[in-house]
Amino acid sequence: MRKIPEPTVLRLSTYRRCLEDFKAQTNLPFVSSNELGRLAHRNAAIVRKDLSYFGEYGVPGKGYSVDHLLKHILRIMNLRREHRAVLVGAGNLGRALLGYPGFKKLGFRVVAAFDNDPRKVGRKIGEVAIFPVSKLKSEVERKKPAFGLITVPAAAAQESANLLVEAGVRAIINFAPARVWVPPRIVLRNVDLTRELEVASYYLG
Amino acid sequence: MRKIPEPTVLRLSTYRRCLEDFKAQTNLPFVSSNELGRLAHRNAAIVRKDLSYFGEYGVPGKGYSVDHLLKHILRIMNLRREHRAVLVGAGNLGRALLGYPGFKKLGFRVVAAFDNDPRKVGRKIGEVAIFPVSKLKSEVERKKPAFGLITVPAAAAQESANLLVEAGVRAIINFAPARVWVPPRIVLRNVDLTRELEVASYYLG
Repeated sequence: MRKIPEPTVLRLSTYRRCLEDFKAQTNLPFVSSNELGRLAHRNAAIVRKDLSYFGEYGVPGKGYSVDHLLKHILRIMNLRREHRAVLVGAGNLGRALLGYPGFKKLGFRVVAAFDNDPRKVGRKIGEVAIFPVSKLKSEVERKKPAFGLITVPAAAAQESANLLVEAGVRAIINFAPARVWVPPRIVLRNVDLTRELEVASYYLG
Repeated sequence: MRKIPEPTVLRLSTYRRCLEDFKAQTNLPFVSSNELGRLAHRNAAIVRKDLSYFGEYGVPGKGYSVDHLLKHILRIMNLRREHRAVLVGAGNLGRALLGYPGFKKLGFRVVAAFDNDPRKVGRKIGEVAIFPVSKLKSEVERKKPAFGLITVPAAAAQESANLLVEAGVRAIINFAPARVWVPPRIVLRNVDLTRELEVASYYLG
């Protein structure tokens, strides 16, 4: 199971979204690789290859069972249980993330936010309390979130990562526009908000 | 030039970032495909293949000229000139985007923001004025931005896309957690803020 290549993992997340849209819009029980490929902007051969990694081959003449495939992808992606997360940086981006509907639906629950701004500390974003960064270690040790989300300015990104690693998170999602370095045992994913603008710039030509 | 595959285009954007970091940190004039691959978390063969698409083969025993390669990637990605953009949705995500440092550095300039909230209209985010959505068409026709950035709630995403397309933008970057449909002539890129959390969830296993 560990052997699914990263581009396939990324596409599984796309297929999940497409399957949910397909189900909501058509309520059909089966989807063909052609149709799923069309929705995901990929060709059908790639769809079939990706799904075959975890033993999904579809029913000849019918395609894939939508419900079964959705459940299987959620299981593969480890998304069928609650994931606790903490947020470092309670600025606009942190707030935007906390308001993002997909977040909760996928089982992610932010259990604490941290910020150095004394005007923010003690307040809440929705239901999430904002603590001073000095409390990060004790709160993480107490609430045991697996995920740390970094939404601080670039200059504070590495320090935030260090604090999260020392406190014991297992995965870091870095939204700050700066590279951070973490020990190899930590799952690190960088989110770059401007990348798709660059890609669009290429295609505008 | 149109034939560079999309995964390569995405990696070019990664290489650009890595080259800028490499230059800032080492100030060395050359970088090997091994080193660039290490920085980009890709193997050296993929780096060489990607760069060969646009005729970059490196100097045997030295590697690639950092400055030359950076300039070449910026040219390929069409990033050596100003790109005007408008922002639909002046909430947390819109504000976060406007504050994102990479934005300006890559040549993107937001020339107007639009929102339906009368408390926001007439105010500014940094130097960007917030107009009512009813002014979108006339402002876009006047300022001729190529890019429309959608940072509204899911329910308003399609309507925002329709307005942008009618007003004449050529590319849409959709940050809203909803799919939108646009005519094939429009370059559409979707940004999903939760995707990397899903990928991390997979790797946590």
